[in-house]
Amino acid sequence: MRTLILLLTVFFLANARAASKNKTSAEILAGAKVEDWRAVAPENTLYMELPAGRVVIELAPEFAPNTVANIKTLAREKFWDGLFIVRAQDNYVVQWGDPDAEKPEKKRRAKGVKDTLVPEFDHAMASTIPFTALPDKDVYAKETGFSRGFAAGRDAGAKKTWLIHCYSAVGVGRDVAADSGNGAELYAVIGNAPRHLDRNVTIVGRVLHGMELLSTLPRGRGALGFYEKPEERIPIKSIRVAADVPEKERVALEVLRTDTRLFKELVSARRHRQEEWFHFQAGHVDACNMNVPVRVKN
Amino acid sequence: MRTLILLLTVFFLANARAASKNKTSAEILAGAKVEDWRAVAPENTLYMELPAGRVVIELAPEFAPNTVANIKTLAREKFWDGLFIVRAQDNYVVQWGDPDAEKPEKKRRAKGVKDTLVPEFDHAMASTIPFTALPDKDVYAKETGFSRGFAAGRDAGAKKTWLIHCYSAVGVGRDVAADSGNGAELYAVIGNAPRHLDRNVTIVGRVLHGMELLSTLPRGRGALGFYEKPEERIPIKSIRVAADVPEKERVALEVLRTDTRLFKELVSARRHRQEEWFHFQAGHVDACNMNVPVRVKN
Repeated sequence: MRTLILLLTVFFLANARAASKNKTSAEILAGAKVEDWRAVAPENTLYMELPAGRVVIELAPEFAPNTVANIKTLAREKFWDGLFIVRAQDNYVVQWGDPDAEKPEKKRRAKGVKDTLVPEFDHAMASTIPFTALPDKDVYAKETGFSRGFAAGRDAGAKKTWLIHCYSAVGVGRDVAADSGNGAELYAVIGNAPRHLDRNVTIVGRVLHGMELLSTLPRGRGALGFYEKPEERIPIKSIRVAADVPEKERVALEVLRTDTRLFKELVSARRHRQEEWFHFQAGHVDACNMNVPVRVKN
Repeated sequence: MRTLILLLTVFFLANARAASKNKTSAEILAGAKVEDWRAVAPENTLYMELPAGRVVIELAPEFAPNTVANIKTLAREKFWDGLFIVRAQDNYVVQWGDPDAEKPEKKRRAKGVKDTLVPEFDHAMASTIPFTALPDKDVYAKETGFSRGFAAGRDAGAKKTWLIHCYSAVGVGRDVAADSGNGAELYAVIGNAPRHLDRNVTIVGRVLHGMELLSTLPRGRGALGFYEKPEERIPIKSIRVAADVPEKERVALEVLRTDTRLFKELVSARRHRQEEWFHFQAGHVDACNMNVPVRVKN
């Protein structure tokens, strides 16, 4: 009888096919060495504590230094503690922050936090930022690839690079003015990559762990998926910089390095799937379909 | 004070900017005429009744005639009634069917249903199937566009066309053998478009309504997101062909036609966003980022 394992995915593949010249993604990952992984720095990690558990976000200060600094100040001033997830729009974003931010008399403020920020929608290309380009063309960017685990776009002519809106990317909500986002309102992508937002928003990182705590939230019934009733909002217990959390309460995560030979092999295996389930080879991969592996360190 | 309407989306845009030569998507849709919409045929519609409500799926018999016929027989034999949603894998798929399909002695069968089917992973291009091509290159297919509201790929050289894996696409689970999917196990995409599955699976339609009933389901903790305990599975009350449901219990849905001048204007407005929130113009659109509008008929 046929089994019901219907769609093979890489990470849980139970019966990786016999070793061959062309390895499957699972086989490549199984052969990864310690140095193919990197530890996530606690100073660049946020823990969002929700009633259902912890969401772990890795920040990307190289791409958005000023915004990341402001966000860390907000966390250290406990700005979000007692605030809410205010929006969940299907196939789009979940967003959190101050539901009263529009009301001057009620709006929450925090010491040392800048109210506006020069936008960091893109960043000058720098030789200090590694970039592993993907071989395939992209619909939106001249070039896409990965910088330290983050999916990024690049325009070598304009000497610009930027993080792109893949699933689990975390961006800064803003009003019409480009400088109106200060990091107090953040969102995470919970649907198909909304790439039209690229370079219109400062992306500050991505969710590494606990994504399902956001993606399964009830969708808001209001315009843009905002919750209509205050009681529908999901309370945020706290958001902390992981470095400020006692070491024994931290979760030690590792992200597969994206500047290695092994990662390039993984890209190749994602373009040309070696699992016998595949009858047709795409021969291509979209950056937002790479899903850079994350693991809890043993 | 800045408002917190942070990411403008087309369909709920409260304050569409003043009319200008270049219209926003909201303005284009507001000007749609009756004939720009098409009613969804009850004979090509499935209602999946879950404890939380109804999921409406439009079938695509032109692309998968034999599989759609088998699925309708399964529905008419009440095959799924009392079966379950068995899998929810984050950023991938939700899947339903018979949890005992692997056990010959327990496996559920239905009269007149074929156990294997010649795969309908792609289809001969036919002049009878309209195709509105998108102007942008695609990462995976030679060409992408829309056929009667469904996102599709095309290879004019090979004279083949196929439905593509966008958010909400419904596909047929199968084992390693290409002919092993008969429609009894179905899945819906709940994450970023898994385009590597294109032409490896028979896609039979898409969810038009109630998508959030699937996308918010708790994720399974087992391999591939399967629920580990039987009690975690979500019971399916019934799956029916809408034509078999009393007319007063149906929901009258309309889908924006994708073979019109208005749809082409909408494509243009998605490539070049006219809302003043956008500071950078993508100038491109991915087929899976078009989100063909659906409405409940008044």
